[in-house]
Amino acid sequence: MPTRFILVAPRHPGNIGAAARAMKAMGQRELWLVAPAVFPHALASERAVGANDLLAAATVVATLAEAVADCGLVYGTSARPRSRYYWPVASPREAAPRIVAAAAQGQAALVFGSERSGLSNADLELCHGLVHIPTDPEFGSLNLAQAVQVLAYELRTASGPSPRPARRLVPLAPVAELERLRSHLDEVLTEIDFTDRTGGPHLLRRVSRIFGRAELDQDEVGMLRGILVAMQARRRRAGGRS
Amino acid sequence: MPTRFILVAPRHPGNIGAAARAMKAMGQRELWLVAPAVFPHALASERAVGANDLLAAATVVATLAEAVADCGLVYGTSARPRSRYYWPVASPREAAPRIVAAAAQGQAALVFGSERSGLSNADLELCHGLVHIPTDPEFGSLNLAQAVQVLAYELRTASGPSPRPARRLVPLAPVAELERLRSHLDEVLTEIDFTDRTGGPHLLRRVSRIFGRAELDQDEVGMLRGILVAMQARRRRAGGRS
Repeated sequence: MPTRFILVAPRHPGNIGAAARAMKAMGQRELWLVAPAVFPHALASERAVGANDLLAAATVVATLAEAVADCGLVYGTSARPRSRYYWPVASPREAAPRIVAAAAQGQAALVFGSERSGLSNADLELCHGLVHIPTDPEFGSLNLAQAVQVLAYELRTASGPSPRPARRLVPLAPVAELERLRSHLDEVLTEIDFTDRTGGPHLLRRVSRIFGRAELDQDEVGMLRGILVAMQARRRRAGGRS
Repeated sequence: MPTRFILVAPRHPGNIGAAARAMKAMGQRELWLVAPAVFPHALASERAVGANDLLAAATVVATLAEAVADCGLVYGTSARPRSRYYWPVASPREAAPRIVAAAAQGQAALVFGSERSGLSNADLELCHGLVHIPTDPEFGSLNLAQAVQVLAYELRTASGPSPRPARRLVPLAPVAELERLRSHLDEVLTEIDFTDRTGGPHLLRRVSRIFGRAELDQDEVGMLRGILVAMQARRRRAGGRS
């Protein structure tokens, strides 16, 4: 079930639109508005860009109690990092998996207070916990749409498959090929009498480590060996001795 | 050292302001602009809200190369989830601790492309890796300030008390040094008449990408350049002509 994003008493219609856009980019679609100052409004539509469908489908109610009546888990967002009146305060990273788990089985909600004053104590009474987005304490104010952005992003990350490295176009080179590259390089370094400023014995290992970190694919190993071959050929053509 | 946030060719001054606000809320302060369409501008200041100091201190340059010349680690943001031309694509969660670790010892940067077209291939050449913010594939477009918001948030979270990757013993090589390594390699490849089996023009770029992925430190760049010097010297001794 999608997580319900509830904006309580938003003052600026532009923020509603920007919040809808942030939600939609992260795959969220359920927007509820509790007593918005102005809605619908051209500014909301303008800032929503491609997310006007979320605005059109938004549910407008008069009180937060109505918006959360069917919710099994409700997190209120708080601009304060510390626990307030005994509510536990979670980070977005801690809260997101709990919300995702709850949303898999029933209705979960995230509640955002109004731009100026945040959530009232009466609103907080309806929440199971608070979530605080860490910010620079000297500046500290995320705007409404930015807070929606961060939490929608955390929900997406928590519900996605755990991040996997991108698939490569070419398979990685097996270790045996890397070993052949290393021997070849060793041969060339001997031919050119190269000794490391910092002392020779570790040189080859250090270069190998660079290749290791780079996670070379098969084409890349072929290309590097091609360069070594060309160096040897050219040197032999030029000098005839080595 | 603060991470440098670099906006390449931003078209809308409002986005610059919103990006500055997102940065400041997360404790970031170093904003660079590469060839902005319009800057400074009243709209930028308006959207920055309390972050006008970041706009006033922003560095404006003509090319991305100037903006990253002293950077040891550069991540470009990409709207594409898959690997592109051999660049690895990390999630914000994977990239953030690496950036935080690099920024602890030198200059690190995050690069954001222009609203319409993202980063060019020439810009990507200057990056060590790409970072993609997971979005709903059916909608998919985060605006510039939202992307800045998510990454600044991840950096803040990564620099908190959670485990961090090991500190490097030697600082990362700045991009300008990598460029010198690349030119030197180009010189040697020309001297040995090396042409890639798969077609010449991309060769140097492919090798550079390997170096980028390996995140070379200053000693390693010195060592690799030493090998190139030895190759040239030995070839000249042997042949006397090239």
